[in-house]
Amino acid sequence: MTATPPRRLLLCAFTMNCVSHIQQGVWRRPEARQVEYTSLDPWMELARECERGLFDAVFFADVMGVYDTYGGSGATSIRTGMQTPVNDPMLMIPAMSTVTENLGFAFTSSIYQAHPFTFARQITTLDHITNGRIAWNVVTGYLENAARSLGYPQLPAHDERYVRAEEYLEVVYKLWEGSWDEDAVLADRASGIYADPDKVHPINHAGAHYTVDGPHLAQPSPQRTPVLFQAGSSNRGRDFAAKHAEAAFIPTARGDRPMDDLNERAETFGRAVGDLRFVGGLSPIVGGTEEEAKAKEADYLEVLSVEAGLAHISGNVGVDLSDIDPDRPLEELRTEGVQGLVKALIDSAPAGTRTFADLIRSNLAGQFLTGSDEQVADAIQKRFEQGVDGFNIITSVLPGTISDFVDGVVPILQERGLMQTEYSPGPLRQKLFGHARLPDTHPAARHRRPTS
Amino acid sequence: MTATPPRRLLLCAFTMNCVSHIQQGVWRRPEARQVEYTSLDPWMELARECERGLFDAVFFADVMGVYDTYGGSGATSIRTGMQTPVNDPMLMIPAMSTVTENLGFAFTSSIYQAHPFTFARQITTLDHITNGRIAWNVVTGYLENAARSLGYPQLPAHDERYVRAEEYLEVVYKLWEGSWDEDAVLADRASGIYADPDKVHPINHAGAHYTVDGPHLAQPSPQRTPVLFQAGSSNRGRDFAAKHAEAAFIPTARGDRPMDDLNERAETFGRAVGDLRFVGGLSPIVGGTEEEAKAKEADYLEVLSVEAGLAHISGNVGVDLSDIDPDRPLEELRTEGVQGLVKALIDSAPAGTRTFADLIRSNLAGQFLTGSDEQVADAIQKRFEQGVDGFNIITSVLPGTISDFVDGVVPILQERGLMQTEYSPGPLRQKLFGHARLPDTHPAARHRRPTS
Repeated sequence: MTATPPRRLLLCAFTMNCVSHIQQGVWRRPEARQVEYTSLDPWMELARECERGLFDAVFFADVMGVYDTYGGSGATSIRTGMQTPVNDPMLMIPAMSTVTENLGFAFTSSIYQAHPFTFARQITTLDHITNGRIAWNVVTGYLENAARSLGYPQLPAHDERYVRAEEYLEVVYKLWEGSWDEDAVLADRASGIYADPDKVHPINHAGAHYTVDGPHLAQPSPQRTPVLFQAGSSNRGRDFAAKHAEAAFIPTARGDRPMDDLNERAETFGRAVGDLRFVGGLSPIVGGTEEEAKAKEADYLEVLSVEAGLAHISGNVGVDLSDIDPDRPLEELRTEGVQGLVKALIDSAPAGTRTFADLIRSNLAGQFLTGSDEQVADAIQKRFEQGVDGFNIITSVLPGTISDFVDGVVPILQERGLMQTEYSPGPLRQKLFGHARLPDTHPAARHRRPTS
Repeated sequence: MTATPPRRLLLCAFTMNCVSHIQQGVWRRPEARQVEYTSLDPWMELARECERGLFDAVFFADVMGVYDTYGGSGATSIRTGMQTPVNDPMLMIPAMSTVTENLGFAFTSSIYQAHPFTFARQITTLDHITNGRIAWNVVTGYLENAARSLGYPQLPAHDERYVRAEEYLEVVYKLWEGSWDEDAVLADRASGIYADPDKVHPINHAGAHYTVDGPHLAQPSPQRTPVLFQAGSSNRGRDFAAKHAEAAFIPTARGDRPMDDLNERAETFGRAVGDLRFVGGLSPIVGGTEEEAKAKEADYLEVLSVEAGLAHISGNVGVDLSDIDPDRPLEELRTEGVQGLVKALIDSAPAGTRTFADLIRSNLAGQFLTGSDEQVADAIQKRFEQGVDGFNIITSVLPGTISDFVDGVVPILQERGLMQTEYSPGPLRQKLFGHARLPDTHPAARHRRPTS
C-alpha cells in the first residue's frame, strides 16, 4: 500500500461521442472537430492532447435516448445534434489507449443499458488492455425515451432506480472483487495449468433484479473494480454517491457546496475522509490575452443555440419549456407566478437578465470561464482552495479547448504546484489516490474473499 | 450497385480472446502469444499479419459462460484455460482497426448477452470507426452456465432461442435499416442543422420479448447492418442461417456437405443464389517443407490436452464425457452399446483408433491440415472447387499460424487465381460480395423506408 499522495488538482476532459454535448451549437465553428465524431481520428488527437497536458482522464458522458421533453418530441434535439445522434463511448477507448500511456478513460454507462454480467466483462477487458486506466461513471438514467427503448414501459421511479443500482453494483463488485483470487492465474506453460479452479468462485447472486451464477469470465485486471464516478444530487443520489463513488460530480452553480454534506454521508457508510473526491465542471475559453479569449467567446456566442439549450434543460429537469415564449421578459413570468423548476430557473438568473431566451443563453454561456491563462488559473486555484478537488473541462471545441488549456493554463497550474508535472506510476486509481485497488472502507471490499 | 465480383476464396483468421480456443493446449508452446491475450499487442500484430496476407477478416469466437458439463464442473476448463477466462472480443476491434485499412472484423455476440438497442448502437459505432469493416456472428448460446449468469433459470429450449433470435434480428434490422433515412444527416455548419428530424423515425417495436421505441441513437454507418455470419446446424438453425446469414459456417467433417440444403432453404426465403456463402474451418500447420510442418505438428501434439478437449466436446454436445475412462478401448465401448452422441462420436472415429483418449486426440488433431505450402494449397483448392467459399483459419498459435500461412500458402493461392491480390475498395460487404448494403432479397430490407 503506497502512502496517500499530497492533494493535487485532478483534471479530466469532459466530452461526449456526439456533435453537441453541453455548449450547444459550438460544433458549427470551423475549428470544431466534433462533426467528425464518427471517426477515431479526432478522439485519438484528443487523447494525445490530454496526455501532453498531464490530464488525468478523458471523461465521456452518454445518454441512451433522445431528449424529447421539449415540445413533446425529439425534433429539436435531432435538428441541432443535441446529444443525438450519439455513438457508444466505450468503443473509443481501446484506440485512444494505443496512443497514450498514462491517460485514464472514464465513461458513462447506465445500469439499464447493459446486463451487469456482460458489462463487468467489458470493464475488465478494458482495464486489462489499458493497463488499468478505466473509470466508470455510474448512472441510473433520466430519459423516458431511453427507458422505452430498453424494454421498460416508462422510466422507473427515481428511488426505484437507485434500488436497482445498488443491486447492480453488488453484482459487479462480486464479479470484480470476489470471483477470482489474486493468485488464481498461473499461466504455467510447463504444467499446462492456466488457472487454479479452487481459486475461481461462482458468485451465485440471486436478488430482486438479477440472478448471476458466475464465475466472472475474466481474470482480474489491474484495478479489478474501475475507478468509480457518480453524480447524484437528490437525497437518494447523494447517499448513493457517498457510499460508492470515489469521485463525485458537484454542481458548478455559484455558492453550491455539497462537499461537507457528501463527506458526512460518506462517514455514515464507514468510509474515510478523502475516500471521496469532488469534481466540478468548468468551461474555459482561453488562448492568448483576455481580449483574444473574449473574441473567441463572442464567436461561440454567435453560434450558441438557445433552442438546443432549451431542449437540453427541458430533458434534464423533465419540464417542457417550449410553452414559454423565449422573448417574454422574465419580469412578466415572475409576476405571473410560475412555479416549480421554471421558477427555480428564473430565480437563478443573474441580475439584469431580461428575457427567457437571455436566461437560457446565460445559463449556457454563463458556464464559460473566459479570460487570460492567468485569470483562468486564478479561478481554478480559488475553487481548488475552497475544496473542489478537480474539474471536468468541458470540451466546447474538440480538441481545441483542451489544446488551448494545455498550452496556456496547465504550465501556470504546474508552476503554482497545484498540478502534477509528471504522471505517477501504476493504474489510474493509484495515480489519482495513491492505491491501485479500492480501500477496505469501500462497500465493494466486503465481497473480497479472505486471502488464503 | 456494383456487379457481383467473380467467386474468390474468402479467408478469415479464426480466434478467440482467450488462451485455449480450439487446439487445446497449444498455448503452452513458447511461440504462442495467446498467453498475452489480455494485452492489445498480440491482437494488433495478428491484424497486421492478416492484412499483409490479404485476409478478409479476423473472426472472434466467444462464449458467455464456462463449459461445466465435463465432470459436472468448470474445473477442467479453468485449469486448462479452455475458453475460460475469456475477455470481450468487441473491444479489441477499435485498436486493431487503427493498424489496418482493409481488414474486416467479425465477432460473436449472443442474443442473450446484450439488449438489442444497446447492441445495435455498438455495432453502428464500430462500423463507423472502422469505415464499414464489421461483421457479426449471430449466436443463440448453448452453455447452461451462460444462461444462468445472464438472468435465466436455465438455458431456454433450443427452438425458443431461435424464436427470440428472430425477434432480436427484427429489432436491430429496424434500427439499422429503417430508423434514419439515407439523407437525414446534413451536418450543416452554416444553418446549424445537424439532421432533419422528419427523416429520423422511431421504430415502435412491441414484440413478445422486446419493446423498443427508438429512434436508433446512431446515424447510419457505411454498411448499416453489419455482414451477418451464422452457424446453425440443427433444422431450426439451418433455417435461421438460410434466412439471415450472408456467410454460414459449415461443418468440416469429411463428406458433410450442407451447402445444397442451405441454398434450397435460402431460396424458400426468397433469397437469390449466391446470397449465402459457405465458410468451413481449417487448422493448417505449414512453414517450410512437409517434414518441417510434421515436426511442428509433433510439437503441438505433445502439448495437446485431451482433458481440455473432453471438456470442450462435453460442453458442445451437452454430454458429460468424464464418465468414460479415457483409456478404455473403443471396441469395448461399442460392444457395450453406448448410445446417442457418444455413439456418434465413436462412429466418427478414424479406422485404427484404439482408446477413447485416442479418439478425442484424433478429434482434436484430426483437424490439423499439416503439410508443405503446396499440399495445403491443394487441399484448400479442392474444397473450394467442391463449393466451400472460404475458410476460417484456426489460429492455433497467435499469430504464428497466420504468419506461416501468409508467407507460404497465400502466394500459391494467389498464383492460382483463387485469392485476391489486392483489396477491393469499399466496406467489408462490398469487398466480400460486391455490394455495400444488404441486397433487397434479405429480410432486413423490408424494414427500409421507401426513399422519398
